[in-house]
Amino acid sequence: MVIVTKPDATPDQIDKIVKRVEGVGLKAQISTGEQRTVIGVIGDKTLLGDMPIGSMSGVEKTMPITAPYKLASRQFREEPTIIAVNGTKIGGRKLAVMAGPCAVESTEQIVTIAKHVKNAGATFIRGGAFKPRTGPYSFQGYGLEALKMLATAKQETGLGIVTEVMTPSEVDIVGDHTDIFQLGTRNMTNFYLLREVGRARKPVILKRGLASTIEEWLLAAEYILSEGNPDVILCERGIRTFETHTRNTLDLNAVPAVHQLSHLPIVVDPSHGTGIRSLVSDMTKASVASGADGLLLEVHHDPDHSMTGDGAQSLFPEQFEKLMQEIKPIAIAVGREI
Amino acid sequence: MVIVTKPDATPDQIDKIVKRVEGVGLKAQISTGEQRTVIGVIGDKTLLGDMPIGSMSGVEKTMPITAPYKLASRQFREEPTIIAVNGTKIGGRKLAVMAGPCAVESTEQIVTIAKHVKNAGATFIRGGAFKPRTGPYSFQGYGLEALKMLATAKQETGLGIVTEVMTPSEVDIVGDHTDIFQLGTRNMTNFYLLREVGRARKPVILKRGLASTIEEWLLAAEYILSEGNPDVILCERGIRTFETHTRNTLDLNAVPAVHQLSHLPIVVDPSHGTGIRSLVSDMTKASVASGADGLLLEVHHDPDHSMTGDGAQSLFPEQFEKLMQEIKPIAIAVGREI
Amino acid sequence: MVIVTKPDATPDQIDKIVKRVEGVGLKAQISTGEQRTVIGVIGDKTLLGDMPIGSMSGVEKTMPITAPYKLASRQFREEPTIIAVNGTKIGGRKLAVMAGPCAVESTEQIVTIAKHVKNAGATFIRGGAFKPRTGPYSFQGYGLEALKMLATAKQETGLGIVTEVMTPSEVDIVGDHTDIFQLGTRNMTNFYLLREVGRARKPVILKRGLASTIEEWLLAAEYILSEGNPDVILCERGIRTFETHTRNTLDLNAVPAVHQLSHLPIVVDPSHGTGIRSLVSDMTKASVASGADGLLLEVHHDPDHSMTGDGAQSLFPEQFEKLMQEIKPIAIAVGREI
Amino acid sequence: MVIVTKPDATPDQIDKIVKRVEGVGLKAQISTGEQRTVIGVIGDKTLLGDMPIGSMSGVEKTMPITAPYKLASRQFREEPTIIAVNGTKIGGRKLAVMAGPCAVESTEQIVTIAKHVKNAGATFIRGGAFKPRTGPYSFQGYGLEALKMLATAKQETGLGIVTEVMTPSEVDIVGDHTDIFQLGTRNMTNFYLLREVGRARKPVILKRGLASTIEEWLLAAEYILSEGNPDVILCERGIRTFETHTRNTLDLNAVPAVHQLSHLPIVVDPSHGTGIRSLVSDMTKASVASGADGLLLEVHHDPDHSMTGDGAQSLFPEQFEKLMQEIKPIAIAVGREI
Repeated sequence: MVIVTKPDATPDQIDKIVKRVEGVGLKAQISTGEQRTVIGVIGDKTLLGDMPIGSMSGVEKTMPITAPYKLASRQFREEPTIIAVNGTKIGGRKLAVMAGPCAVESTEQIVTIAKHVKNAGATFIRGGAFKPRTGPYSFQGYGLEALKMLATAKQETGLGIVTEVMTPSEVDIVGDHTDIFQLGTRNMTNFYLLREVGRARKPVILKRGLASTIEEWLLAAEYILSEGNPDVILCERGIRTFETHTRNTLDLNAVPAVHQLSHLPIVVDPSHGTGIRSLVSDMTKASVASGADGLLLEVHHDPDHSMTGDGAQSLFPEQFEKLMQEIKPIAIAVGREI
Repeated sequence: MVIVTKPDATPDQIDKIVKRVEGVGLKAQISTGEQRTVIGVIGDKTLLGDMPIGSMSGVEKTMPITAPYKLASRQFREEPTIIAVNGTKIGGRKLAVMAGPCAVESTEQIVTIAKHVKNAGATFIRGGAFKPRTGPYSFQGYGLEALKMLATAKQETGLGIVTEVMTPSEVDIVGDHTDIFQLGTRNMTNFYLLREVGRARKPVILKRGLASTIEEWLLAAEYILSEGNPDVILCERGIRTFETHTRNTLDLNAVPAVHQLSHLPIVVDPSHGTGIRSLVSDMTKASVASGADGLLLEVHHDPDHSMTGDGAQSLFPEQFEKLMQEIKPIAIAVGREI
Repeated sequence: MVIVTKPDATPDQIDKIVKRVEGVGLKAQISTGEQRTVIGVIGDKTLLGDMPIGSMSGVEKTMPITAPYKLASRQFREEPTIIAVNGTKIGGRKLAVMAGPCAVESTEQIVTIAKHVKNAGATFIRGGAFKPRTGPYSFQGYGLEALKMLATAKQETGLGIVTEVMTPSEVDIVGDHTDIFQLGTRNMTNFYLLREVGRARKPVILKRGLASTIEEWLLAAEYILSEGNPDVILCERGIRTFETHTRNTLDLNAVPAVHQLSHLPIVVDPSHGTGIRSLVSDMTKASVASGADGLLLEVHHDPDHSMTGDGAQSLFPEQFEKLMQEIKPIAIAVGREI
Repeated sequence: MVIVTKPDATPDQIDKIVKRVEGVGLKAQISTGEQRTVIGVIGDKTLLGDMPIGSMSGVEKTMPITAPYKLASRQFREEPTIIAVNGTKIGGRKLAVMAGPCAVESTEQIVTIAKHVKNAGATFIRGGAFKPRTGPYSFQGYGLEALKMLATAKQETGLGIVTEVMTPSEVDIVGDHTDIFQLGTRNMTNFYLLREVGRARKPVILKRGLASTIEEWLLAAEYILSEGNPDVILCERGIRTFETHTRNTLDLNAVPAVHQLSHLPIVVDPSHGTGIRSLVSDMTKASVASGADGLLLEVHHDPDHSMTGDGAQSLFPEQFEKLMQEIKPIAIAVGREI
């Protein structure tokens, strides 16, 4: 950390800051510039804990040098994390493809779609049992019943299951049915939920918060990792910006950025990332080309009769099938396969 | 709702859309323009439920005409909601002033600060017992112990208590000690928590999400109201924008906007809204002038030794006292009092 | 400046960076931490010029310590800049009130409004002669004719004139008629225009860019100041965020922030800052309470027949008159007068 | 356009609105809902001009149905625009690759880089002669001298030239030397400049404004098109968001979105779009996969000694060469070639 003092900071104030830093066993290196004094803090910065340096008299600002996450960082683990689940691997050479409807609506619906996406090459069936909805009057998912429908779809196709968990008290019941927990964008800062899935023994897809920086996202992953669960899969799903033509702005910069900062795998959700069916295919191709470790895609065979408005961004099965063919050469071009 | 069709929508597609709308008992009024057909949907739109009109063939977009919240709207209730709690009223002529430290650190600390802010004119003591923190290694609050410390502060000063609740399973225990629940910005879309405090019988301060539109914020309030708890107090606390000089961008536009859209009271938190101590006083004055029903302010008598980095935005007791004097004439100028 | 090296930076790379810094006469102070080396650069950083330190091998990032603007900074000039123009002063105790229509539409219109706002206490008449419009088919202003109409309004009322200049080649002709140049939000980074008004001898209102940080805004002011024109008035007019309920998000945090960073006066435009007539009065009050040195307000006596869509945010003359009365006690409460 | 009235709008107010609409020869279709009346406006909406419907009494909001640009729209011209320049075509099957340094620094520098990028497959040499810089003390480009250096580079390699023009009065001189004008992100709303290049007879690359919506961007293109210049090439170069890890957020959603809305070609600038050299290659691949018609890339053989800070995002020639090979199979996968 670097501490920048105010132009009018007194020697006494600077002295107090230095004493505070040294008092916890760190070294303070003072640089006296023309306008202000800068204090470099050297050593294991966790010794500082939550010490409110920034609020001390004479301090203008503090600037961190190293990232605030540890277990999630590339420094902590150089090799990429590869997660084995349901006979597949996520984070390796082969792309993970998780596809399915926004919400599980019936056994027939989910089995039909699961068969479609399995045939087209998907490795997981996704579908919401518990649905986070902006308003209280929207369909909130069929819950436990939907988990059972997903289990049937798995039985019929062999596909692993990805489904969302929304609150700590449901981690057990969802965990009994799913292969991978999904944490939605609206729950990225639900810290109790992060800890609870951190204590579970199943992989977790952690969607980026609507307005979360990459650093905050990796700190959310750190919550899960620090509880002992090493199997976190990050998911870029679009951020909120001023642009209103698309529902979200898919931030593909995050894919190579995360690969540099962290050893964790990262998948992309172009369905939510655009919110518009006609943009999904092109952005799926772009996601693969950017180096994503996998895809999360909405597919519905009858979106006109789906139970959530997200039908507007779902691919039809034939579109999905075509897309799976189209991304193959791109995957190969970036050293991956499908 | 208005349904805008694509320029190349076929008569058959338009017909299907109309049938779908009329099928649930609504009226569809067709306007055939030069480039496209627009279908006005007339009637009680809740009949539409989650019908995915937007994903039907031939539809370009749908545009809502009325707000998606009901109980929170000014149309539902013309008179402002006034909430009586601990002998005070929130939403009436007198401003509610909730002040205290970021975190409860000790009985001595919280009692000292409570006495200070009481003397200066505050009506509530605020302080965190359970703390939402971006990273897992930061101080997470003293929990139940801190709730007891707050109770002591209340006993000593008579001030009502405002403290945060972070997860559904802690609503009961927090409710046993607090007068007002606080839901933090990171939990505005924790829908299970919204429902749980909706079932409690205590007022709730609902902070605006970091990147939540006013409409989404009122929908979050609707979750609470729809469970039977009418006592929701909105809190503007700064939104996330591109500006990095301040920690957040305090959106005071939201104060008169909420007063027009809703009957619920709205308070402002200039401490988080700026993140910089030296900006808090001016922005508190601006908050009062904008018509806020109250204030949430961080006050700490010894921020250099506080346990969270938020010390950098806490007022000293003497600053708070001075500020309380300074806002009096402004409050009077806008028809309020302190 | 602080130079942070990569964890794997070699001694040779660090040596090259140090040599580069010392080569221009600066001192490099090396701090060797556990994970990386940090190099503090001490001395007059303008010696660095555009040296691309950030792109040198082994460098992870550079962090500036001091602001990149000089003449605009509070360090350069401690006393607030007070600008005398047309017998009034901007930046002093008395608030500057600039009011008028979006566009000058006729002599009768502008004289009528000028008389209204003069009577209510305005100190300047504002109105667009050259109009920046998002699309080419919108009314672009009456140009020179409108400048003459403004001159008539000045003759009749004695009010100084504020009007926009859009391109370097029109600085002379606009300068012949106006008392204060206005540079619009879409021209804040029109650097040739900044330089040209910097060479003129009239005050300049510099509106903040739609997505400009406070630092970039002060750098734009620096362009004008560095050409020799000391009379820059900053104008906060709302920034672009994700919120769509209001046209812009008025960032009042900028008012006290600018006062701390700079000696230049700052006025606020709540008309564009909200874009909604019914929010303007409350936000004008908030602007005054935040410490603004003045106001820029749209007033139109017949907005239903105005020539630009901005009529939707214009106050009626009677609203303006009432507002001028209402802000008086607030101005006094913050040590100002109207 | 759809006009939504206020819940309390009177029949008289609605009547006035209807009369106003019908007065210019449009048809007004009234839908009386439960809560409010909605008026659909049918006909050629340019008849409305700037009529301030939104500010009329009784109006809550107006919602446009059709896009405000015309010449730029896909409706106006179904076939993609293909621009022939310097023996190459932009917008066709073959990708345009424009590469070179941020600024032209010397004849030797620009010729050296031009030869490198020509050999690697670029079709244009790019380099700044007139440089828009955030602050007045940064290197502003060598101007006319640099234009001559670019001419030499063209002579030596045959590559067409892309260089920026910053102000209307320099359109002629820049046009005498360049093959394609570049309009920078900070000048997207410099409307006089848009018109001036609209009157020139050379293609124009129009970079998206830092905080411009796709609609505003297409409206800026409309300015150029409406002056008679049909050869506009859009360039996505990253938008400003809350994320600070990257310099900008490259919005690749814009590529397929623009292709749907407009017939104009769109290229991508991953150098500015990320601001970080180590992210450029992956994002270039993603750009090609998203369907971009071309690329704008910064390449510098000696970024450690470049004259602008943008060296930090420049590729080395060998990186560029490798990248050109790597994107070939991706281009083919999406039906293009290099």
